[in-house]
Amino acid sequence: MTTRPLILVTNDDGIYAPGLFALQQAMSAIGDARVVAPDSERSAAGHAITIADPLRVWEYEKNGGFFGHAVNGTPADCVKIGVKAILKQKPDLVVSGINQGPNTAINVIYSGTVSAATEGTLMGIPSIAFSITTFRKTDFSFAAKFAKYLAEKVLREGLPNGTLLNVNIPSLPPEEIKGVKITRQGRARYEEFFEKRVDPMNRSYYWLSGKKMMLDSDGDVDDVAITDSYIAITPLQFDLTDYKSFDNLKQWNIGIPDGQSSDT
Amino acid sequence: MTTRPLILVTNDDGIYAPGLFALQQAMSAIGDARVVAPDSERSAAGHAITIADPLRVWEYEKNGGFFGHAVNGTPADCVKIGVKAILKQKPDLVVSGINQGPNTAINVIYSGTVSAATEGTLMGIPSIAFSITTFRKTDFSFAAKFAKYLAEKVLREGLPNGTLLNVNIPSLPPEEIKGVKITRQGRARYEEFFEKRVDPMNRSYYWLSGKKMMLDSDGDVDDVAITDSYIAITPLQFDLTDYKSFDNLKQWNIGIPDGQSSDT
Repeated sequence: MTTRPLILVTNDDGIYAPGLFALQQAMSAIGDARVVAPDSERSAAGHAITIADPLRVWEYEKNGGFFGHAVNGTPADCVKIGVKAILKQKPDLVVSGINQGPNTAINVIYSGTVSAATEGTLMGIPSIAFSITTFRKTDFSFAAKFAKYLAEKVLREGLPNGTLLNVNIPSLPPEEIKGVKITRQGRARYEEFFEKRVDPMNRSYYWLSGKKMMLDSDGDVDDVAITDSYIAITPLQFDLTDYKSFDNLKQWNIGIPDGQSSDT
Repeated sequence: MTTRPLILVTNDDGIYAPGLFALQQAMSAIGDARVVAPDSERSAAGHAITIADPLRVWEYEKNGGFFGHAVNGTPADCVKIGVKAILKQKPDLVVSGINQGPNTAINVIYSGTVSAATEGTLMGIPSIAFSITTFRKTDFSFAAKFAKYLAEKVLREGLPNGTLLNVNIPSLPPEEIKGVKITRQGRARYEEFFEKRVDPMNRSYYWLSGKKMMLDSDGDVDDVAITDSYIAITPLQFDLTDYKSFDNLKQWNIGIPDGQSSDT
């Protein structure tokens, strides 16, 4: 590569998040890193996009200088508007994160961090989502170092059309991390409930609460690899068709009501 | 079935939407239909859930009687809180819609309508998303009739664990609908741009705009089936792992920076 690669950096924890700063710093070491990130936390935003409201863009300063553009939208919005209206050209790479908390198993489908990388992939740009597997205040330096290493590899090798990488890095001292595993999205999910509370105006409200239940034990499952002190890299794609059910459903002979093959 | 099935009815166009009313009426003909729906439009909400804010629930009346519960949340929130805090039992079926506008191809991943059915499936409940393929004011009666027919079939046959149905019904006179096709999620996507405008306070804002580009021609693709005047039923699942890329990625020999197999 003769010119420095152009890298779009975003997240779902918002433009103030330390994980975003760590990722921007790491990407600046290998390319022209441009931040376009949500103006507030958008965790669990799923693959939401803003179509019924206008988007606004602000310039955000940090440490006395321009840091990046803040958008009143979702992570997927940030990638769309970043590419189309801010950069006005296709970057060589989209990176999202470093998210505070794992994006593994069922969290993948709720994840704003992953959705930003999905959006990049949809636009034909190699894209990677990075998460560190703790919700506590943490040191991002090893995760940022790994992000730089993997980003360089992806810039060099490319990614297959329609494939993104979802990377989860254990929150451990670097010397305790055993290596990297290529993993699949696990089946772990939440046993959830709603806490009903009463506000100072005597109106009731609900908070979602829940406990994660592991349902896998194979070493190539994202959560298991992390528990085993490995970095988990799961390749993702976005054709949700359940091809396994195709033949079964065809045998249902679904007709149209009042039509010949109907049974109502 | 000796008792009437319990059916949770939701959508992403909001509790006021005529498509929700049509679906509630259709489900009431075959079971105990309970509405739990967003208090405002949540189109393109993706699989967002609300974790950082409290959820509130209102009783909403229609035509002089109780119609259902409105929630200040996303479609996925409505299913979670509907099952866990409102019904307080697992319904026999979750139905979502009838959405105004197609949920085909790439729209599947942005769709709040689909995400509600995904959430139901995650909770182990057979779930179906229904959409009518027009954004204009339309007659929902045929779509509602088909929803009733298919819901009865699913209540009778069940669905495989982890599979949901995404149903798109052409906005055509019933006699012009040729039948039903089991389809796959197409690759059609949007060529998008942002219109930059200036508000009355002289501040700029952006609207997302775009044109759908068809990239498939096979008859078993969702959008193609609809263009051919068929109802498209796509079975969906939510393991996003790209198994095709597994072996390729393993050959990258990704190490950890400063580690033995690293190349930085």
